[in-house]
This record gives sequence, C-alpha cells and structure tokens, in this order.
Amino acid sequence: MKARVYVTLKKGILDPQGQAVCKTLGRLGFEEVSEVRVGKFIEVTLEENDKARATERLSAMCNQLIANTVIEDFRIETLSE
Amino acid sequence: MKARVYVTLKKGILDPQGQAVCKTLGRLGFEEVSEVRVGKFIEVTLEENDKARATERLSAMCNQLIANTVIEDFRIETLSE
Repeated sequence: MKARVYVTLKKGILDPQGQAVCKTLGRLGFEEVSEVRVGKFIEVTLEENDKARATERLSAMCNQLIANTVIEDFRIETLSE
Repeated sequence: MKARVYVTLKKGILDPQGQAVCKTLGRLGFEEVSEVRVGKFIEVTLEENDKARATERLSAMCNQLIANTVIEDFRIETLSE
C-alpha cells in the first residue's frame, strides 16, 4: 500500500523558511503572495493491506520519527493500490 | 485564495533523505516500510480570486523559485476560500 504523510508546522510556530520564500517571491514580482508556509510531503510504500492498520502504524512512525510533534502536525492519507 | 503546492523528486532521482528515513524506520521496528520519498508541501496565501490565473502564477513561482525543475516535479492545488 502507498500512503502520503503531510507534515506542517503548527499554527503560531514561526516559519523562517516560508517567510524567506514569501519575500523572495515578492522581489521576483509575485506581490500577490501574502504568506508561505513550508512543510513536508512524504510518500511511504509499506507492506500492509489493511488501511486502518496502516494508518495506525504510520501514526506511530510520525510520532516516533517523521514529525516533531512539539511544533509540527501531521496528516496521513492512505491510497488504494 | 489559498493554494497548496506539492514538490516531489522526479522518478529515478535518488532520494538519500528518504532512504535514511526508511532505514531508520526499519531499525525502529517498522519493517513493513519498503520505500520512503521525501518532498515538500507548501501552503501559499495569495490575493487572487481567479483559480486559473492563480494556477498560472503559482506555476511561474514554482518554475522560478519553489521547485528545481531539473530534478523535481510540482503539483498545484487551489482551494476555495
């Protein structure tokens, strides 16, 4: 099964990388951009056919390694084969 | 309008970060994971109400700054307010 994990900074957590991209876009002529937040998009291939079980395992992976849950949120999306 | 941009490494491009995450997950007991690919997930807030125009502008932003189109693909998703 394939799954997608989205890791984003929690609301209120400063995102200097996003701010840098936002400022640079403004300098390049994209003045309509008011905010940019940069997160991670992770594609995981795993040998597990049960969606509920896969989500549970992926959640454990996020909590233990993929996300820093002090400052980041994560969202899991499992895809049908 | 808000938009989401997904930046992923093109197929065939080596992803050492993903490999490192994959190996570490294996060591942590997640042996069912066979592949991990790490990409970027960017949330953009822009003053533009026309979806087609927003997509066009975002595509230009990706080509000029956000993505390295030699090795990366990008996908744009515009969200209704």
